[in-house]
Amino acid sequence: MTLQINSDRLWQSLMHLAEIGATAKGGVCRLALTDLDRQGRDLFVAWCRDAGLSVRVDAIGNLFARREGTDPSRRAVAMGSHIDTQPTGGKFDGNFGVLAGLEVLRTLDDAGIRTAAPLEVAVWTNEEGSRFVPVMMGSGVFSGAFGLDDVLLQQDIDGLSVGAELARIGYAGSQVPGEVPGGMFDAYFEAHIEQGPVLEAHDLTIGVVPGALGQRWYDVVVTGMEAHAGPTPMNQRHDALLAASQLVQRINQIALEHAPHARGTVGFLQVSPNSRNTIPGTVKFSVDFRALDDEVLAAMDQALQDSCAALMASDPRLNIAVEQVVYFKPCRFDADCIGLVRNAAETLGLANMDVVSGAGHDAVYLAAVAPSAMIFVPCKDGISHNELEDAQQDHLAAGANVLLHAVLARAS
Amino acid sequence: MTLQINSDRLWQSLMHLAEIGATAKGGVCRLALTDLDRQGRDLFVAWCRDAGLSVRVDAIGNLFARREGTDPSRRAVAMGSHIDTQPTGGKFDGNFGVLAGLEVLRTLDDAGIRTAAPLEVAVWTNEEGSRFVPVMMGSGVFSGAFGLDDVLLQQDIDGLSVGAELARIGYAGSQVPGEVPGGMFDAYFEAHIEQGPVLEAHDLTIGVVPGALGQRWYDVVVTGMEAHAGPTPMNQRHDALLAASQLVQRINQIALEHAPHARGTVGFLQVSPNSRNTIPGTVKFSVDFRALDDEVLAAMDQALQDSCAALMASDPRLNIAVEQVVYFKPCRFDADCIGLVRNAAETLGLANMDVVSGAGHDAVYLAAVAPSAMIFVPCKDGISHNELEDAQQDHLAAGANVLLHAVLARAS
Repeated sequence: MTLQINSDRLWQSLMHLAEIGATAKGGVCRLALTDLDRQGRDLFVAWCRDAGLSVRVDAIGNLFARREGTDPSRRAVAMGSHIDTQPTGGKFDGNFGVLAGLEVLRTLDDAGIRTAAPLEVAVWTNEEGSRFVPVMMGSGVFSGAFGLDDVLLQQDIDGLSVGAELARIGYAGSQVPGEVPGGMFDAYFEAHIEQGPVLEAHDLTIGVVPGALGQRWYDVVVTGMEAHAGPTPMNQRHDALLAASQLVQRINQIALEHAPHARGTVGFLQVSPNSRNTIPGTVKFSVDFRALDDEVLAAMDQALQDSCAALMASDPRLNIAVEQVVYFKPCRFDADCIGLVRNAAETLGLANMDVVSGAGHDAVYLAAVAPSAMIFVPCKDGISHNELEDAQQDHLAAGANVLLHAVLARAS
Repeated sequence: MTLQINSDRLWQSLMHLAEIGATAKGGVCRLALTDLDRQGRDLFVAWCRDAGLSVRVDAIGNLFARREGTDPSRRAVAMGSHIDTQPTGGKFDGNFGVLAGLEVLRTLDDAGIRTAAPLEVAVWTNEEGSRFVPVMMGSGVFSGAFGLDDVLLQQDIDGLSVGAELARIGYAGSQVPGEVPGGMFDAYFEAHIEQGPVLEAHDLTIGVVPGALGQRWYDVVVTGMEAHAGPTPMNQRHDALLAASQLVQRINQIALEHAPHARGTVGFLQVSPNSRNTIPGTVKFSVDFRALDDEVLAAMDQALQDSCAALMASDPRLNIAVEQVVYFKPCRFDADCIGLVRNAAETLGLANMDVVSGAGHDAVYLAAVAPSAMIFVPCKDGISHNELEDAQQDHLAAGANVLLHAVLARAS
């Protein structure tokens, strides 16, 4: 029979870690670099010591638990995620990827298997960004996206800095971020709950993640003419909300035209003066475009600009200002690593499909410095960043088994 | 030559009255039943005494300046409007209708003309409703829409009542509202600035007003499913704002389908949770439907209900709750009185067109108890309830001349 991780041990570890910062509603509040984060880190480190792993800490507080391989010339194959949570977070976001990695190492111990390449489990500092910005701080510093000195000076709302809080909780390590014994990781695999509804809707267990969506965010301001709703005939209006609502429709349509891996969302919209019997003079709204390919994002951008131009051409007293405020390039994960994940799922007989990551993950930064891939498992109703976040033990075990076999294949 | 009013005298009277409560920006702030309202009333009454008119005051503070006719069996033909203003009101809203009436009587004196029927100029209390609700209070009590005792108890934001303030400023009269010497008015004519953009857009001087639009107002709540904008594919969304924006489009279309005298406006819209990267779960918005015929309003109501039902049928996880919160029946003015206004404009060679009243006026309440009509003149950019409100002297004179000849024709 194919080697399997210990499902109960994985589940018990998840539940044990979830006690630290547990909330009354069944969630977890364990913000980065708090005393609770320290307790969580201490528990993980204790488990690593029990497993005979060596633990390194780098200057941004990233933890690396290492199990040596048999071939000193090989670079490490890494797994990992994060254990900080949102203020109203759940038990699985991040924690699953870390403890699945630990469970893989424990399983190899139980089976007496030693890989050729060393294996590491990484815990990235402050992925959530709830207390300190930027988000994905630890993996961002590790991969060179952020400068260490800048990040250490970041302060929370009480004026406490990342550097001071790292020192206070005892996790300001001596390692230089990005330096790994024997050289940069040969590969990085991150298991994670999907945080979306796709696997559940398809009743599938494993998501093979081709990449993470790039993002373009915009602020749009539509300016028409305020007027009294009673005396102003329909053909003498310059209604900013009517124009904005056409754009809301169009933004949805633009995303549909680039299915299945595009998203178009207007999440924020504000009307002025926002009075029942006054034709709106100004509407401000946000646009959130996401796509798996940069060319698609560019085409969506062009379609938005064209739609705004057409609307303005139809009414010279209408003005539409579009400002791009966020731009993240899409991330394509490594084809070989993706192939190992897919093969592992197939070998284990686990139904799977491609599911893009719509949100950011540490693996997106890791992909810049090492071949990377992710494994998604379903979460209930697609809900995350919420105390209601939930996942099934058998799904989590399946994800950890895929991680085990993808890593084994890479590290053999 | 056809008899004409004295344009300069009318203009000077308007400017004189506008000094009471004049604002720095050129507008007027003369709220109902304030000391400034008393000063305005006192000035009007002084002018009436100078013109040899008798003045009555009723229990809701309505003023009636009367010029007797030659035939004691005839009922009075009335003119009028109001002299209270919005907090940031203009010089013409209301004041024009009152002073045009006074100017008609002065012109008849100058010309030595005595009509068969008595003539009256009415000043209706608290048309604006800024300080005390309901709006159109004096004409509403006069016509029986509101009970006197209820209205006298209404309080402003400082707890001062209508009854107490009427007594304080000396305008709590002894006349029973609705009682007129010789019987209810034979007709009522109200001249008013249009407060809309139609006459100006057509470059015309006189609006013949067929009626006032009825209104149906609604609160709509669209409930979908909040979700993360990144991981949620387009085909698994239940986006409340997307549905609401379709309804905004549809509401506009419904009004266009009943052109030219229908209006459909979404002036208020609120998104929840209103976060850039969260698909909106709830959207609340207002609907303001107006039409000149009750059957048209009913058809618009049905079209809205149908559109909501169709949207809900297209997505079972979408709920749309529609609650009607305001209903005013449309008002059709009297065909004979409208004819007199139109004839007067034609006789005077004044270019004119039909313009419906989109807002409420005292004439709408008067129409319930006496044959009534209105005369509109243009105001700059259609702006009213604003210190920028403006009107041209020649337009105002033209409106007063139409009033003169319509009244002469009725009262002869």
